[in-house]
Amino acid sequence: MNIYDVIHRRRDVRAEFTGAPIPGDALDRVLAAAHAAPSVGLSQPWDFVLVNDPAVRGAFHAHVQTERATFAATLEGDAAARFAGIKVEGILESSLSIVVTYDPERGGPAVLGRHAIADTGLYSVCLAIQNLWLAATAERLGVGWVSFYREPFLRRLLGIPETIRPVAWLCVGPVARHHDTPDLERHGWRRRRPLTEALHHDHW
Amino acid sequence: MNIYDVIHRRRDVRAEFTGAPIPGDALDRVLAAAHAAPSVGLSQPWDFVLVNDPAVRGAFHAHVQTERATFAATLEGDAAARFAGIKVEGILESSLSIVVTYDPERGGPAVLGRHAIADTGLYSVCLAIQNLWLAATAERLGVGWVSFYREPFLRRLLGIPETIRPVAWLCVGPVARHHDTPDLERHGWRRRRPLTEALHHDHW
Repeated sequence: MNIYDVIHRRRDVRAEFTGAPIPGDALDRVLAAAHAAPSVGLSQPWDFVLVNDPAVRGAFHAHVQTERATFAATLEGDAAARFAGIKVEGILESSLSIVVTYDPERGGPAVLGRHAIADTGLYSVCLAIQNLWLAATAERLGVGWVSFYREPFLRRLLGIPETIRPVAWLCVGPVARHHDTPDLERHGWRRRRPLTEALHHDHW
Repeated sequence: MNIYDVIHRRRDVRAEFTGAPIPGDALDRVLAAAHAAPSVGLSQPWDFVLVNDPAVRGAFHAHVQTERATFAATLEGDAAARFAGIKVEGILESSLSIVVTYDPERGGPAVLGRHAIADTGLYSVCLAIQNLWLAATAERLGVGWVSFYREPFLRRLLGIPETIRPVAWLCVGPVARHHDTPDLERHGWRRRRPLTEALHHDHW
C-alpha cells in the first residue's frame, strides 16, 4: 500500500474489531516497523508488552470503565449526551493488546540530544507507536489507542518496574472496516481543523 | 514507495542536505500527511512554523552550537572523542526548517482521552511528526530532528506564545543520499538493540 494511502486511511478503531487472529508474519512486520523508529541518541527507549491473557485484559477493561465514568462526570449538557454514545475502546473485542513503555535510563546517562529537553525520550516512544499504527493499517489491521487509565494501575497490572513509564495501551487486530471519517467527527464530538489554520511562516 | 520501504529507509539526516528547493507539491503532501495524524480527542494540537528566514535560522544555529558545547562538557574520554566527530544538525544546509508546536488548550477544556494522562496531547504532536518524517522520506527528502536547544529560547526567537510548547525543530530538504545505517551507529556512538529484547508477553 502506498504510504499516503496508509496515512490517510489510518483510523483510531474502537468498534470494528472482528477478533480474528493476527497472522504471525504480519505482526512481526508491524513490530519491526515500530522498532525501526527514530529515537533520541539512538536510545530506542521503548518496550512492547503483548497482552493476550483474557484475565489481564478484563481487569484493564474494568479499570477503563471506571475512568470513562470519571471523565463523563466532568461533562455537561450536549457534551455529556454526545459522549454517552461514543465507544472509547475495543479492549475485549480486539485480537491483541500491545502496551508500549518508555525507559528513561536506556542509553544513559548521557543521551545524545536529551540534555536540554528531558521529554525527547518520551517523544521517541511516540514515533515508534506511529510506525506501528501505520504498518498495522497497511496490513489491514485496526489500532485503537486507549488512554482512559491511570499509569500506576497499568504498571501494577503488568508488573512494570517503577522506573519505566507506560505510554500507551493499543488494541490491535483485524477489523470489519476502516471508516472514512474519524469516529469522534462521525459522532459530532469535534470537527477536524483545516491544515491552513495550523501553518505559520517564519514567525508565529 | 511501499510503506515498509519508507519506514526502514528513513534516517535522521544531518550531513547530506543539498540545499536544493523542495517542490511545492511535495511539501503540501508532507504537511497534509502530518496533519492527518491521530490526536487525543481529535484535538489536533499541533502547529507548523515554516522557517525560511536565514537570519532566524542563523540565530538558532548559533544557540545550538552553545548547547552542543554544554552537552560535550558532560562527556569524558572515549565518549567525548566520539561526540566530537558527530554532526548533530543541518540547520543552515537544509532547504527549510519546520518547527512543530503543541497547544494544550486546543479542543479543551474537556479533551476526550486526556483527563487521566496530561501528556497524551504532547504524544499526538509526535505522531504528526512521524507522519511528516515518513512522507518526506517517500518524497526522497531528508529530515533531521534538532533537540540541542532550550525551549524558552526558541519560543522567544519565533514569537511563540507562552501557552504553546515547541516540540521539535526539523531540518527538511533534498539530500544526496539516505545512509543504510543510522549516523550514530556509523560513528560508533551506539548500536541498535535487537527487537527481541524489547518484547514481553502478558507481563513485563
